[in-house]
Amino acid sequence: MAKRKSLKTDSCPVARALDVVGERWSLLIVRDAFDGMRRFGHFQKSLGVARNILADRLQALVEQGIFSVAPASDGTAYQEYVLTDKGRSLFPVIVALRQWSEAQLFAPGEAHSQLIEQGSGAALRTLAVQAADGRVLQATHTVVRKVQP
Amino acid sequence: MAKRKSLKTDSCPVARALDVVGERWSLLIVRDAFDGMRRFGHFQKSLGVARNILADRLQALVEQGIFSVAPASDGTAYQEYVLTDKGRSLFPVIVALRQWSEAQLFAPGEAHSQLIEQGSGAALRTLAVQAADGRVLQATHTVVRKVQP
Repeated sequence: MAKRKSLKTDSCPVARALDVVGERWSLLIVRDAFDGMRRFGHFQKSLGVARNILADRLQALVEQGIFSVAPASDGTAYQEYVLTDKGRSLFPVIVALRQWSEAQLFAPGEAHSQLIEQGSGAALRTLAVQAADGRVLQATHTVVRKVQP
Repeated sequence: MAKRKSLKTDSCPVARALDVVGERWSLLIVRDAFDGMRRFGHFQKSLGVARNILADRLQALVEQGIFSVAPASDGTAYQEYVLTDKGRSLFPVIVALRQWSEAQLFAPGEAHSQLIEQGSGAALRTLAVQAADGRVLQATHTVVRKVQP
């Protein structure tokens, strides 16, 4: 298998992000962590992924500083994977994927899990790209300014 | 290679989204399309990806309704890949990845491309997950309501 081109030093932030989390298991592990999961066995059961693949992805996420490893919170010998600040700041990415999917990949009335505000149980606002003054912008209203070589 | 578990019918919207776009080339192709790219050769040059992989990913994105195929806009024999409404609505996903990366994966002062408002050249607002009334919510303020079996 050819060595994949690394985007680690790419000057495009999107490319660099996908070098770190651009693999579906990685973002599904992060999703599960937002839902409160911390243990290898729980991630494995939730995702139904092979143990060696999960171990590989978790190790990469720890190396990237998305998760830290901590002793089990209940005093047992397990180790736990805890989202760092860097990992927790992926929340808008996960929510953007969820909202796109809800709008585009489900039939009207088709059942799906819902992300709601704790306490009130209310739905969240739909993410929108905005100008500094709050106007909603479509992609065509924006442009990428390239880095000068 | 073991057949991967399909998440196509998963009741979690995040899982279903990643079944469609959870592969880094797919989202990089969408990014390039937001930057105005439409042709196979241009995507190929931008991404430096093998032609067979690019052809495979583009075909999958067309099958998923993210891109449509159109005759070349300049009357030549080329075909062009044009984002559909479904594809264009991935804009917040791409922007969320970009903003996370800018904040977390670049050293202070390190050069990177910037997404700006056309015309004014101003920076965009940072995406934030919000309650219906506009309060910014962290992941810990939210909970996933599972589908009843």
